Amino acid sequence: MRKSFLELHHEFERVLLNLGFSPERADACAQIFTQNSCDGVYSHGLNRFPVFIGDIKKGYIDIHASPKLVKSMGVIEQWDGQLGLGVLNAQFCMQRAIELAKQNGMGCVALKNTNHWMRGGTYGWQAADAGCIGINFTNTIGIMPPWGGKSPAIGNNPLIIAVPRKEGHIVLDMAMSQFSYGKMQEAELKNQELPYFGGYDNADQLTRDPKIIQQNKRSLPIGFWKGSGLAMMLDLLATLLSGGKSTGAITQTGEEKGVSQVYICFDLETYENSEALINQILTFTNSADKINDAEITYPGERTLQTRKYNLANGIPVDEKMWAVLLSL
Amino acid sequence: MRKSFLELHHEFERVLLNLGFSPERADACAQIFTQNSCDGVYSHGLNRFPVFIGDIKKGYIDIHASPKLVKSMGVIEQWDGQLGLGVLNAQFCMQRAIELAKQNGMGCVALKNTNHWMRGGTYGWQAADAGCIGINFTNTIGIMPPWGGKSPAIGNNPLIIAVPRKEGHIVLDMAMSQFSYGKMQEAELKNQELPYFGGYDNADQLTRDPKIIQQNKRSLPIGFWKGSGLAMMLDLLATLLSGGKSTGAITQTGEEKGVSQVYICFDLETYENSEALINQILTFTNSADKINDAEITYPGERTLQTRKYNLANGIPVDEKMWAVLLSL
Repeated sequence: MRKSFLELHHEFERVLLNLGFSPERADACAQIFTQNSCDGVYSHGLNRFPVFIGDIKKGYIDIHASPKLVKSMGVIEQWDGQLGLGVLNAQFCMQRAIELAKQNGMGCVALKNTNHWMRGGTYGWQAADAGCIGINFTNTIGIMPPWGGKSPAIGNNPLIIAVPRKEGHIVLDMAMSQFSYGKMQEAELKNQELPYFGGYDNADQLTRDPKIIQQNKRSLPIGFWKGSGLAMMLDLLATLLSGGKSTGAITQTGEEKGVSQVYICFDLETYENSEALINQILTFTNSADKINDAEITYPGERTLQTRKYNLANGIPVDEKMWAVLLSL
Repeated sequence: MRKSFLELHHEFERVLLNLGFSPERADACAQIFTQNSCDGVYSHGLNRFPVFIGDIKKGYIDIHASPKLVKSMGVIEQWDGQLGLGVLNAQFCMQRAIELAKQNGMGCVALKNTNHWMRGGTYGWQAADAGCIGINFTNTIGIMPPWGGKSPAIGNNPLIIAVPRKEGHIVLDMAMSQFSYGKMQEAELKNQELPYFGGYDNADQLTRDPKIIQQNKRSLPIGFWKGSGLAMMLDLLATLLSGGKSTGAITQTGEEKGVSQVYICFDLETYENSEALINQILTFTNSADKINDAEITYPGERTLQTRKYNLANGIPVDEKMWAVLLSL
């Protein structure tokens, strides 16, 4: 089943208005959720929307709160998200980082007490649309064992790096686990093994069984010890620069709210020759001999293809999730 | 065989002075190579020194060149390394990034036309010693296949993130391949398989055979498609921000020289409560249940242990490499 961008947007907006969102906020939130589905990130578009609504109803998210400036230090700003809407707080802070970069070449905004931003790539595309290199990351609740451990004690902190390009931005949006819980669920529903090791079984052996990993929460960081270390560093940076909650502190509250985030921008429009250098890099990487009929893509290439296809043909929606949305 | 820090330093210095280094430069370079071995990174200390000397003799490195300011844009500076000594150029640029951060909260230095910095962590420790969060990365010659490819067309671009801490800095120093060529050579010499998949064999299957991967140059990026994408992003950022050579352009010259690098610092001394937040994060991560008798360490923890041990007991040196050093 496919729905148009407008249909999906309209239904999201309707639900949000009914919850008391201002028209501007309902529109802005609906836009982000619709775009996430349109870009093929269904797990953080339609399929996540009911959870988001649930969190609002539970009072985890203050739908009227706005970010508050804590401290301005020239090219760096600290903001308090006041437990508001994660998607709008994130959009606001990336916009501030863009503005700081336009004024100073670069800018950094650190945000504390915010909520789930859904898909981190949203804000990478935003930076790139503004002609900026964007780097953003968030911490999360403890959801993955650190290297050497078997109970969760690091976040699956995603890192986004975006580079603007006329023919299509290059946007890396990667979490620290080899497979997301969404991917593992998908494989389980299809009765498939994961294509590569995705975690540990209960006998401490690496496994491709998505069911076991979802049960024991022993997902595998990318590159084993390396992804585990990188997850720690992102938590350190987000916590220190924002003065907010660490993965540990979030975990102790028992709910994933009040997370810490960082947004860094460089204004690439002040640099000469960027398009040529970018295309040189993409062309070189794509020049490698391919494994059989494999494609070599740059980060974000498939997102753009999916976006174009879905805009032309409608956005695929899960029938059950669509029914849930209509019932909200 | 173990040698004291001073003995090793003295021999390095002697060779460099004989090559026409100024006393200051000979001392500074010797210090970095000795510290790398002292910290347990033998591959980029003593064991790399003869290659470094060879590159100088081949004329790849101008031992008298100094970095030249290309453009100053407030908190961002672009420098030209003028094909000088990679280790001193790197140290200089991290020092500039520290100074910019001390003045402005943060600073970024992009460096083009420089040479191999040996161990990227050196400059992370430098930033942390100055009370700064440091982020630095370099591109390299094309040495790894991108995801989907089977011939090298991305760099094994290392990423370093450092956080200062009184009891010992936290320093992540990770290249994008699962195993370095140094580690693969070590395993091969011991007739061991790699502990995890490290690359592809000639039938396009994942393999733990270090010999095959060293032959076919098909090493595996961390997290498969994720590390491949991150390597591309680091090349993009280093090339764009410095206006220097990309991995592709370096590869086309046939020699790994004239690489591009980025140094970013945040002055953490202006933030309150950092030590407590850092220790909270380390304590939380270490609270995970352990797999058997595994240790959970933070990035840099083992480096510091090794440093202390080697300072007290002497630095392990390979007998053959020591003989080579004495013969230089």
